[in-house]
Amino acid sequence: MGRVTGASVDADVLLARAYLNRVAEPTCVPLWAAVHRDGPVATARAVRLRTADSQVLTATQARAATADPEADLEAADRAGVRLVVPESPDWPHFGLACLEHTGVRRVAEYRAGGQARAPHGEPVPPLALWVKGTADLASLGVRSVAVVGARAATAYGQYVTGELASGLAAHEYTVVSGGAYGIDAAAHRAALAVEADTVLISAGGLDRAYPSGHADLFDEVTATGLLISESPPGAAPARQRFLTRNRLIAALSAGTVVVEAAVRSGALNTAGHCVRFGRPVMIVPGPVTSAASAGVHDYLFKNPETCRLVAGVDHILDVIGGFTSSLTSPPDAAAPSPDDAGDPVRRVLDQLDDLGRSVYDGLPARRAVTVDELSITSNVSPREVMRALPVLEVVGLVARTADGYRRVPMPAAARR
Amino acid sequence: MGRVTGASVDADVLLARAYLNRVAEPTCVPLWAAVHRDGPVATARAVRLRTADSQVLTATQARAATADPEADLEAADRAGVRLVVPESPDWPHFGLACLEHTGVRRVAEYRAGGQARAPHGEPVPPLALWVKGTADLASLGVRSVAVVGARAATAYGQYVTGELASGLAAHEYTVVSGGAYGIDAAAHRAALAVEADTVLISAGGLDRAYPSGHADLFDEVTATGLLISESPPGAAPARQRFLTRNRLIAALSAGTVVVEAAVRSGALNTAGHCVRFGRPVMIVPGPVTSAASAGVHDYLFKNPETCRLVAGVDHILDVIGGFTSSLTSPPDAAAPSPDDAGDPVRRVLDQLDDLGRSVYDGLPARRAVTVDELSITSNVSPREVMRALPVLEVVGLVARTADGYRRVPMPAAARR
Repeated sequence: MGRVTGASVDADVLLARAYLNRVAEPTCVPLWAAVHRDGPVATARAVRLRTADSQVLTATQARAATADPEADLEAADRAGVRLVVPESPDWPHFGLACLEHTGVRRVAEYRAGGQARAPHGEPVPPLALWVKGTADLASLGVRSVAVVGARAATAYGQYVTGELASGLAAHEYTVVSGGAYGIDAAAHRAALAVEADTVLISAGGLDRAYPSGHADLFDEVTATGLLISESPPGAAPARQRFLTRNRLIAALSAGTVVVEAAVRSGALNTAGHCVRFGRPVMIVPGPVTSAASAGVHDYLFKNPETCRLVAGVDHILDVIGGFTSSLTSPPDAAAPSPDDAGDPVRRVLDQLDDLGRSVYDGLPARRAVTVDELSITSNVSPREVMRALPVLEVVGLVARTADGYRRVPMPAAARR
Repeated sequence: MGRVTGASVDADVLLARAYLNRVAEPTCVPLWAAVHRDGPVATARAVRLRTADSQVLTATQARAATADPEADLEAADRAGVRLVVPESPDWPHFGLACLEHTGVRRVAEYRAGGQARAPHGEPVPPLALWVKGTADLASLGVRSVAVVGARAATAYGQYVTGELASGLAAHEYTVVSGGAYGIDAAAHRAALAVEADTVLISAGGLDRAYPSGHADLFDEVTATGLLISESPPGAAPARQRFLTRNRLIAALSAGTVVVEAAVRSGALNTAGHCVRFGRPVMIVPGPVTSAASAGVHDYLFKNPETCRLVAGVDHILDVIGGFTSSLTSPPDAAAPSPDDAGDPVRRVLDQLDDLGRSVYDGLPARRAVTVDELSITSNVSPREVMRALPVLEVVGLVARTADGYRRVPMPAAARR
């Protein structure tokens, strides 16, 4: 098994997830539900032996016998690509927490509704990610911002994208985009130009660039940043894969900025995922006489409650700041009062914004709760709860369990 | 008294209001409060004889003896300008209802705070309006939209203004603006070009154009539309008068569209009045690289809950539609059910939107209530109440009294 990368992960797990990643298209709700319930190794065995539940069998019928995870891992290795799985130390738990939440809820809906097959772009987490490059994967979603937009971008759109992306890079935000022509490429290139990390999330396998004209861009991104794909090597960037890819761009960014988009553009599909995850969507305005800006204007007009206009980096930082401030303010920024100096929980709570505090206060002392329960106990909408939980997790106040979320036990003296 | 125009208004009232209009700057809170309490004739007498309350005496000290209303009315008459007062049949009650509400509240605050003199732009109604032209004054605020913006407008801004203003005119909306260079002029000219009514609200006296380079524009507007000013003939357009003028632009329009504005522009001052009145504020985006659009982008960024982005006439109609739909849908559009065919109240109620119905339902059967009381009984914010009341008044369900608002008595059979 020398070719199986990811030394700290059990080889069985890695092979099982490579198999599951190949055996159905990403965002297959019943397959994710089975893995969530039974774990990857048991689920892979049940698929192979055709003992899984009927929905999983239907979804995996075509490829169960022919999928060859060892061949996939070898092909990846030859292309310098590694497989990262939830059991890996560098899995982006923080960014993907939103998909865990929506995934659990989607499974419940799916079971209630009994749909035979779910459409693409379902909000379930990836079973595994194919990754190339050296930049930090684990913390994506904390200090990363997606900048996406039209392929048929104007000179104005590309110029503004460059300004925003290099400005974000100057503030140590990683620029995430989809590697397409137009706005995406302008975003990656601006980050590369100031020698900042950039993350390219592709819809196809990472053994080749898509579009092929961007082979150089893919190479440059690999050198200092990251390429990410949910599809195994050799997978073509089919239309459905763009839709599933878009949810990862939204999940692995603290917010998404759409620079130009015609009406019904894929970039606005990414924005839809953001809203579902409680992440901010921002649009950059342009002339109302420009068809390339018509989609973003229309999107903001129709979504005034979930979308913000941003006209510069300051605006973006302001919007994103609300999302990540509790993480980015240094732990010692606020001088603790003498009484609290020795109380680590209080010290951390003092760093939280009102939302974080409300959600924390809504957690019962000893029991794990679901997002929906927590929404009721904290009097905060489920979407806001989902926004706050990853922060509470990262600062160590909350832990995820099989039953939901619970307070991290603290020494009695440290309790509020 | 042959020169006193406005034949249907008592000459004493007209002269008293002309005097009061001259004796202090517009938006003098104590003077408006005195007129609201004692009426114009008694207040004018008390000012002249120096028997008014001390705040009114202070505010009118400089001009009480020299003000000459007959001379003002004669000068106006020579310039083709007439004085319209709240007692005139064509006073724009609907549009100015918002200022009545805010004025009453401001008087209470003012008395509680005891400020000696209020700043300019206070939200109290005008004591009188100087008017020139033949278009309909009374219904301003129902089917009129303000289109305002930077004097230093770009070619883009002027082009877009022209498109929006002619589009609004095509939908039978009167275009209201301030007659300034740049966006204002583009708005008036576009309406004139399609032979539509346009209303120019000037900061100075109407005996001369301001800016003087717009003498032709003022003449063209007079021919088919209206010139309006709160200042008597001969008054210079001082800076403070622009601020008081802006509240009239906001009040006499169903919504205000700001096309271009630098940061801290006067056009955004108009937007502030709109928000106070519960009227929609709309901004037209432009390139983020344009300083002329920086103010509108920043305004929307900072006011995402009260300001909307509009990229075309359809967007504006959508926003304004929510404000005026209950007025503009023809009374017979919905076929009444057989039961209700004979019930005029029910027929009118069916035309209302949810807001209008909630506010109507909050009115007690026999007693008049204030906006604040009505906010509590209807469970609707005071701002929303203020938005709904003029509509309820115009459709005849609600009447204003000295004590507030009350249901219009209906025959018992017609009651719900």
